[in-house]
Amino acid sequence: MFIARVTGSVVSTQKIDTMTGHKLLVVEPYRLEGEKRESLVTTGRTFIAVDTLGSGEGDYVLITQGSSARLTPETKELPIDAVIIGIVDTVHIDRAAVYARNES
Amino acid sequence: MFIARVTGSVVSTQKIDTMTGHKLLVVEPYRLEGEKRESLVTTGRTFIAVDTLGSGEGDYVLITQGSSARLTPETKELPIDAVIIGIVDTVHIDRAAVYARNES
Amino acid sequence: MFIARVTGSVVSTQKIDTMTGHKLLVVEPYRLEGEKRESLVTTGRTFIAVDTLGSGEGDYVLITQGSSARLTPETKELPIDAVIIGIVDTVHIDRAAVYARNES
Amino acid sequence: MFIARVTGSVVSTQKIDTMTGHKLLVVEPYRLEGEKRESLVTTGRTFIAVDTLGSGEGDYVLITQGSSARLTPETKELPIDAVIIGIVDTVHIDRAAVYARNES
Amino acid sequence: MFIARVTGSVVSTQKIDTMTGHKLLVVEPYRLEGEKRESLVTTGRTFIAVDTLGSGEGDYVLITQGSSARLTPETKELPIDAVIIGIVDTVHIDRAAVYARNES
Repeated sequence: MFIARVTGSVVSTQKIDTMTGHKLLVVEPYRLEGEKRESLVTTGRTFIAVDTLGSGEGDYVLITQGSSARLTPETKELPIDAVIIGIVDTVHIDRAAVYARNES
Repeated sequence: MFIARVTGSVVSTQKIDTMTGHKLLVVEPYRLEGEKRESLVTTGRTFIAVDTLGSGEGDYVLITQGSSARLTPETKELPIDAVIIGIVDTVHIDRAAVYARNES
Repeated sequence: MFIARVTGSVVSTQKIDTMTGHKLLVVEPYRLEGEKRESLVTTGRTFIAVDTLGSGEGDYVLITQGSSARLTPETKELPIDAVIIGIVDTVHIDRAAVYARNES
Repeated sequence: MFIARVTGSVVSTQKIDTMTGHKLLVVEPYRLEGEKRESLVTTGRTFIAVDTLGSGEGDYVLITQGSSARLTPETKELPIDAVIIGIVDTVHIDRAAVYARNES
Repeated sequence: MFIARVTGSVVSTQKIDTMTGHKLLVVEPYRLEGEKRESLVTTGRTFIAVDTLGSGEGDYVLITQGSSARLTPETKELPIDAVIIGIVDTVHIDRAAVYARNES
């Protein structure tokens, strides 16, 4: 999995039928940087993921890729390869929080 | 999934039998760039994806990769690893449209 | 899938038993470049793929990766992650051929 | 698989139900460098993996990605794409140890 | 698949139970370079793969990644994503050998 920030959303009306009603979010993978990995920085890449948790723009989320993206109750049998499996509350490195949702 | 622009098509006559009759499009992955992610720019990469939605050159589409590409009604059991699951109408970042199909 | 050029072949005698009799080709992924994507250029990467179509050196082929590589009649249950699913006849961009097999 | 160093942990309360109770660690892939591959150095990338072995910060671990991440007793049917399958004791290159857990 | 050189080995005692008794080798992917692809050069990347063929340091091998790594008799149901499926004897480009095991 990887940490990503939700930056936007995508709308598509002409689509595979089973995709109807599924929220599609734009997410940007982040990585840890700095001598003590104290900074959470963007990778500059862009993915689209299905959201079933009510994630919103600005949230940091956990993304699962590949066939495992179909292993949630609402995504079984969908033709998708990325899903949000959690909204990140905190990221701790060396027992120090480098990200905490309420403080951001 | 990722956003890609359809740039062309591929024809192959000597192929695996089950691939007969399936449209193969050239697609180029795009990513969001700029301080507010206001620009949709190419990654410079090139993939081939199966299309079952009538996508045309210039369209921005959503691509699913891997085993999930076989989870659409017309691609079950095909030896493919990429399929178009939707034609993109709009991409919104921070509630502003960075792409709208009718205006492009 | 991606377009690749066949550049060579690999021989292995000590191998997993089920791999016996399967042709292994060296393939090099290509991508489209230029303002109008008019050039088919190498990515500089190297992969090995199973061939069941009689592909030869110099041919441009379509490669499927991952579990879907096992979805052809001759590769079922093989421990492989890449197979040639078609020999490319033409690549069209904007209705102009950027590659045509007979002319190359 | 790849070798990674555990650098931190992630907490998520809003998540897919089946993810409850699973430890999520921040891991950083490492690679071997130097003329004799005598140095284990970071790739600068960041992943999140499920841990079932009691791995701790600073440990070097083996990460399995993709559908195989669901092939451990505690991760069956989970929507995950990365799991720790072992804590590394030693890495030997050319019969010389480039990493030994007790000495680090 | 890709060609890789075996450079070392990994030992792990705390691991998923089913991994007991499986040999883990350090492998480095190689690619072809030069105007006629006459040189086999390292990519600088590092992976860990399961070996069931008796591969040794210095051998060039073929690596299969992903779920297909579980399609050999000795790796069924293992939580692994990379396996050695063959020891390379020769790599031919344009009918000239760029690598021959006995001569190296």
